[in-house]
Amino acid sequence: MSDVSQKNHFSPKYLRDFTVEVFSSFAIPQKDAEVAADILALSDIRGIDSHGVARLHSYVGLLHEGRINPNPNIKIIRDRKSICTIDGDNGLGLVVGPKANKIVMEKARLHGSGWASVCNTNHFGIGSYYAFKALERDMIGISMTNTTKLVAPLWGAERMLGTNPISIAFPGLKEPPIVVDLATSAAAYGKIEIARRANEQVPSGCIIDNKGRLSTNPNDMIEGGALLPLGSTKELGGHKGYALAAMVDILSAVLSGANWGPFAPPFALRQEIPTRSVGKGIGHFFGAMEIDGFMEVEEFKKRIDEWIKVFRQTKPADGTNGVLIPGDPEHEEEKIRKRNGIPLSDAVITDLLEVARISKVPFKID
Amino acid sequence: MSDVSQKNHFSPKYLRDFTVEVFSSFAIPQKDAEVAADILALSDIRGIDSHGVARLHSYVGLLHEGRINPNPNIKIIRDRKSICTIDGDNGLGLVVGPKANKIVMEKARLHGSGWASVCNTNHFGIGSYYAFKALERDMIGISMTNTTKLVAPLWGAERMLGTNPISIAFPGLKEPPIVVDLATSAAAYGKIEIARRANEQVPSGCIIDNKGRLSTNPNDMIEGGALLPLGSTKELGGHKGYALAAMVDILSAVLSGANWGPFAPPFALRQEIPTRSVGKGIGHFFGAMEIDGFMEVEEFKKRIDEWIKVFRQTKPADGTNGVLIPGDPEHEEEKIRKRNGIPLSDAVITDLLEVARISKVPFKID
Repeated sequence: MSDVSQKNHFSPKYLRDFTVEVFSSFAIPQKDAEVAADILALSDIRGIDSHGVARLHSYVGLLHEGRINPNPNIKIIRDRKSICTIDGDNGLGLVVGPKANKIVMEKARLHGSGWASVCNTNHFGIGSYYAFKALERDMIGISMTNTTKLVAPLWGAERMLGTNPISIAFPGLKEPPIVVDLATSAAAYGKIEIARRANEQVPSGCIIDNKGRLSTNPNDMIEGGALLPLGSTKELGGHKGYALAAMVDILSAVLSGANWGPFAPPFALRQEIPTRSVGKGIGHFFGAMEIDGFMEVEEFKKRIDEWIKVFRQTKPADGTNGVLIPGDPEHEEEKIRKRNGIPLSDAVITDLLEVARISKVPFKID
Repeated sequence: MSDVSQKNHFSPKYLRDFTVEVFSSFAIPQKDAEVAADILALSDIRGIDSHGVARLHSYVGLLHEGRINPNPNIKIIRDRKSICTIDGDNGLGLVVGPKANKIVMEKARLHGSGWASVCNTNHFGIGSYYAFKALERDMIGISMTNTTKLVAPLWGAERMLGTNPISIAFPGLKEPPIVVDLATSAAAYGKIEIARRANEQVPSGCIIDNKGRLSTNPNDMIEGGALLPLGSTKELGGHKGYALAAMVDILSAVLSGANWGPFAPPFALRQEIPTRSVGKGIGHFFGAMEIDGFMEVEEFKKRIDEWIKVFRQTKPADGTNGVLIPGDPEHEEEKIRKRNGIPLSDAVITDLLEVARISKVPFKID
C-alpha cells in the first residue's frame, strides 16, 4: 500500500504519543485524544497505512479550521432498549465512534444486543477498531460508516456513494480472531492515486470515466470519473456491491438523520463540499451482540478455531499460496511492525512535519 | 433467468394453492403449508424463478424420503432478551424460517431489536420474504443463511462455502421499498447451468476450474470447479466477497451450532453429502429493528423516498438506461406477472407433474 521505496521507521509508541499531543493541542480532552490516537495506532500497527497517522494531517486541517468540535456533547437522542440514535455534536469521528460503540456494548450487556445509528459525526478511522473492542467483552461487534462520495452505483456515471465499509470480528480460542473489514467498492481510492503517481494503469473493473465507461487510466477516475462498486459490472455482480453500499448508507446516515449518499460532507479540506445538506454530518452504524446469549463463549471460540483450521486446509488454487483467513494479512503485518516499527513514506513525514508546525508539537525524525 | 422459449403461464393463486396441497400431503400442518407456499409464491411473482415452485420438486424429494421433519418442534434453546438461538428440529426451512423470523420481530417489539441464529434447519426460500415481513411491522428486517458448498474462497481450488445470501429491506412512503437481496457469489449457479445447456461460455470472473484457474467454460465449474465469490479476483475484491460469505456462514451456522462451510448438508437429493457433520442442519440468521426506536417512522420513510429520487436522477452511464434502485427489477416483474401470470418452463412443468404423481395432488396444465 505504499508508493515510496525509501522509508523511515518509527516506534508505534512515539507516533501514538505524538498523535495524543497533537489532538490535545486542539483542546480535545486528554482521554478522548488517547482513544483517538489508539485508533490511528491500531491502523498503523496492522499495516492499514491509509488510515493511520497518514490521516492525522487531514484531521488537523479540519480541527484547525474549526470545522470539527473538539469537545462534543455526544447525546442519545432517541432510545428504545437495545437500539438508539446518537448525535455526535460534530465531534471527531475518532471521539464519537468509540463513545457510540461503548453505548452499544453497554446496551448489549443489558439487552443481549445493542445497536446505534449515529449522526453529526466525522470520519471514524478503521472499522475493525470497533469490532476489536467488542471482542474484549466476548461480543460480536459490527461497524459501518458512510463516507464522502467516490463510488458510482452500477450503470451510473457519477459519484453517489462513499466506499462505505463494513467491519465485523469473531474471536478464536487459540487462533487470532477472524476480522472482516472491507470497503464496498471494488478497489480503494488510494490504489488509484498510487497508480496515477506511478504512471501505471489499473485493472479493468476498478474505475469508470466521467461517461460511466470502464477505464484502466487512473486519471479518468480522478478527473471526474468514479470507483466501481464491489462486483464491478452487472455480469460479475456490481449491483450487489452497490446494494451493500446503499445498505451501509441507509443504516448509517438515513436512519440517523445524517447526510446520505452524495451529500456526505468531505473528510479533508480540499475535497468538494456538497451543494446540498440533507442532515447532520456523516453517519455511522454500530452493533454488538453478546456471544453468550447465543452459545457458550468457549464453545463458540472452539468452533471458530475449527472453522479457521478447515479453511486453511482448502486446496490451494494454482499459482497461489492458498486461502487466507480474513484478517490474516494484518495479523502478519502486526508481527513485523511490532519488531521493526512503523514505516512512513516521505510524503507522510512531510505532512506530519506540517502537523507539528500547526500544532506546535515537535515531531522528530531520528 | 429462463432457458426455454416456449412457456405456459399459470395463475399465481393456482400455483400457490397447489403448493399448499402438496406440502399438506406430507403431513405439514395447514398453516405452515400456507406460509411455505407464500414464500415460493412471492419468489415467483417477483420473477426469482430459481426460488419459486421450481424448487418444489427438491423440497418434495427430501420430504418424500423422510429427510425433513414435516411437523417440527421449533424451540428457543438459548435466550437473552433481544437475542436467541433457535433449533428448527430439522423442519422445512420454509416452516422454520418464518417462525424464527416471527420470534425476532416479537423480540424487536419488546426490546427494540431481535436477533436469532438458527440451527437444525433447511433451505428457507428467498431471503427477501423475511425482510418484507418486517416491513409490515415498520421494522427493518435482515436475513442470512448458509447453503450447500458451491463457492471457493479466494485463492482456493475447491468449494468451501455456499452462495450465502444477505437480505435487508427499507420502506418508502410513496415509493416501493428498497429491497437488498444478494448472494455473496459473483454469479448464481443457475446462470452457469443455463450456459452449459445452451453450450455458451460464461464471463471471466464467475467461475474457476478444479485447479482454481479462471475459466469461461461452464463445464469446468460444474465438473469439480467452483463459483467465485463476489469481487472475483484479488484485484477486484474477491477477498471481500469471500469475507462476506464467511460472515454469513459464521452468524448463521457457527453461532447456532449448525453445519458450517463445506459441511452444510445439500438442498436436493442428488447433491453430494458432506463426509463430516459439525452440527445440526444448516443455519440461518435473522434480525429485526423497530424503525421508531431510531427515528419517527414517517420521517424515515420520507427520507427513503428522497434517497430513491436522488439515486434515480444519477447521471446514466453511456450505453445503459441508468441507475436502478435495489428491488426495482423485481417490482417491475411483479407488475407484469400480476397481469400475465407466472411463466413456467417445460422442465419445471415436468418436475411439477412428478410432484403431482408423488404427492397425489392433481396439477393441471390449462
